[in-house]
Amino acid sequence: MALIVHKYGGTSMGSTERIANVARRVAKWVRAGHQMVVVPSAMSGETNRLLALAKELAPAGVTDEAYLREQDALAATGEQASSALLAIALQALGQPAVSYTGWQVPVRTDSAYTKARIESIDGERVRADLAAGRVVIVTGFQGIDENNNITTLGRGGSDTSAVAMAAALGADECLIYTDVDGVYTTDPRIVPEAQRLHSVSFEEMLELASLGSKVLQIRSVEFAGKYRVPVRVLSSFTPWDIDINEEARSGTLITFEEDEKMEKALISGIAYSRDEAKIAVMGVPDKPGTAAQILGAVAAAGIEVDVVIQNVGKDGRADFSFTVARSECDRACALLQENVLPALGATLISDKHICKVSLVGIGMRSHAGVASTMFRTLSEEGINIQMISTSEIKISVVVDEKYTELAVRALHQAFGLDQPGGGKLA
Amino acid sequence: MALIVHKYGGTSMGSTERIANVARRVAKWVRAGHQMVVVPSAMSGETNRLLALAKELAPAGVTDEAYLREQDALAATGEQASSALLAIALQALGQPAVSYTGWQVPVRTDSAYTKARIESIDGERVRADLAAGRVVIVTGFQGIDENNNITTLGRGGSDTSAVAMAAALGADECLIYTDVDGVYTTDPRIVPEAQRLHSVSFEEMLELASLGSKVLQIRSVEFAGKYRVPVRVLSSFTPWDIDINEEARSGTLITFEEDEKMEKALISGIAYSRDEAKIAVMGVPDKPGTAAQILGAVAAAGIEVDVVIQNVGKDGRADFSFTVARSECDRACALLQENVLPALGATLISDKHICKVSLVGIGMRSHAGVASTMFRTLSEEGINIQMISTSEIKISVVVDEKYTELAVRALHQAFGLDQPGGGKLA
Repeated sequence: MALIVHKYGGTSMGSTERIANVARRVAKWVRAGHQMVVVPSAMSGETNRLLALAKELAPAGVTDEAYLREQDALAATGEQASSALLAIALQALGQPAVSYTGWQVPVRTDSAYTKARIESIDGERVRADLAAGRVVIVTGFQGIDENNNITTLGRGGSDTSAVAMAAALGADECLIYTDVDGVYTTDPRIVPEAQRLHSVSFEEMLELASLGSKVLQIRSVEFAGKYRVPVRVLSSFTPWDIDINEEARSGTLITFEEDEKMEKALISGIAYSRDEAKIAVMGVPDKPGTAAQILGAVAAAGIEVDVVIQNVGKDGRADFSFTVARSECDRACALLQENVLPALGATLISDKHICKVSLVGIGMRSHAGVASTMFRTLSEEGINIQMISTSEIKISVVVDEKYTELAVRALHQAFGLDQPGGGKLA
Repeated sequence: MALIVHKYGGTSMGSTERIANVARRVAKWVRAGHQMVVVPSAMSGETNRLLALAKELAPAGVTDEAYLREQDALAATGEQASSALLAIALQALGQPAVSYTGWQVPVRTDSAYTKARIESIDGERVRADLAAGRVVIVTGFQGIDENNNITTLGRGGSDTSAVAMAAALGADECLIYTDVDGVYTTDPRIVPEAQRLHSVSFEEMLELASLGSKVLQIRSVEFAGKYRVPVRVLSSFTPWDIDINEEARSGTLITFEEDEKMEKALISGIAYSRDEAKIAVMGVPDKPGTAAQILGAVAAAGIEVDVVIQNVGKDGRADFSFTVARSECDRACALLQENVLPALGATLISDKHICKVSLVGIGMRSHAGVASTMFRTLSEEGINIQMISTSEIKISVVVDEKYTELAVRALHQAFGLDQPGGGKLA
């Protein structure tokens, strides 16, 4: 007997018929002898419907805390409703079940409305229900702060709720049912030969998630790593009565253990992101403090910086480049033009048509040769590399956006990722 | 400066446009110098929508506690959403506002899901917000039991929430905005000349509410009486910018003080109910214990009995009649036929085509003559009285259903209720 947490997205909960199928699937797991905790999202479309109502009433662009507090209280109702409905569906199958909201558990968070972080979860009440033979359904996406205000964890937050719940309960595995059937070596829309990964380390998953493989909310992966919760991403589109052993092995397991397979593969996947823009500040004084001056101003405006490059100076002047979210590019440029560049005597160029392509692989840590294979591959395709950034388990390059597909396909083939057991040096 | 509680029904909250108008009305009361607490219902249709989803999933007729617990958690989301939306609408007007759910206040109830009773309300947090200049919005209809399970108060429960909130806070008045503009001397659909009552005692209101004048949930009136909360029923259809002094005097005030006007009027209103059925048990032994035997069996089945009559016995046998809710009539007859009548050697007749017509008036306590005027009036119209029941402030008669309108109109005229200042003996 294992303690298992299931998480179902809004699509799985999208109608009473689908909710009934979720209940059948969960009941199957109970019949197989497992204790089950389920974290559902709101019925698909419900959160958007609620937020649209708020938008009709609120002044455009309002972001003050009093407003965000109410928006969270509003949005949290979607999961409360879907959780109660799932409990009813399980009961209809003769399976005792009970639903709890974030405050009933309670799931404690900080007070950052719309993007709260989970601070603690009290598993006592849930454990008592499990011991009594009940399936326990816990609302995803929400918690309460120290003053009992309702908070939400942001879009995709139910993934984090599920993993955090699994961590608090010491669950054996957290299964995230989603509309993809696992994590792939790259985006199958670009490379049809992309292979599903049977397992991936949470560190790799962190990079893949943050680099635009939007399978899981990134914070859920952080949680999984921190609390060593095995997380499996698998398809919610399989029939509910699929053989449970087959189901339990499907999808992609995100693990904190490095198995032998991982030792062999250098590269697990190739991610790309077209959500960034490049800002190059040219002719800055080549002396300590310049970078801090530029990035400090950007950070003070709440704009996150990703790749940062400073070239070698010449004649006391250097060029300094970085990327920001594409949606923040204009704001970042405007504030630099106004507040920073005049004092530095520097000029600025921005480019929104870039793409960041990244190789991710935990095996890379102990192997040379990955970077040179990457650069050679891109060069052979005539793709100019504009920026390079490396970490222990990834290498990212910024290239012209128009080369996105070409770069991803070429790298995918060069590292043999289109073959089962690929990801080695060619 | 007064502390005022407003309650708005689902129709008033039926769209974002209407919610914005509720906000404008509340803000007007704040500008007039009042501290405001608002208890909204769910947006019209929302509670039905949610319960329909539950019904799609649950087995027909399910009523076990585990199910009702989930149904309450589901239904409670409607008020949480509308409350947050109203807070947002007030903030959009520049009026600081905050919404609280039942558990956040908290509003403590017993554990009777779908029909919970409020046990206590902690007004501390609300008072602190009021002192800080905020409008406080509290979800109607819901609370939590001692184990932090979400409970609802039943249909119309938001009226009770509002009055209970007003009691807990020691509010100066509780205004119930509804789709009628007050309490009338009788149903204006039957008697177009029916007059709006400027005030009515809570005892009279209790009788009027329980007798089918469905203006307010009866428990809200009980609360008002118990905690001496002045409650005003008024129209939600007046423009939000109606003069506040005019608004504050409109509708019907339910008061615990007997003013002079009441001393003069014997009769405040005429209520009727076609929701009952009559059961006559004939030829029961005319000895102590027989009534208890019959009514005990009915009560044990959870069926409430209203009017009860036993005629004078003859030859050791008597007839015993009572009314029950029309929907319970068949069940009550069946269980009597099976379990009680054989031992008594009695037979049974039931009649679903009856109507109970009641005169209600606090002035009746100290005046004779009301009953005789009532009986004479009905007699002159050729209406046979089947049963009679009296209390300190009401006289009810059961007549054939077909005489309903005729009886109500004749009595309304006989007591001068169609004239301003009516309700006296003719």
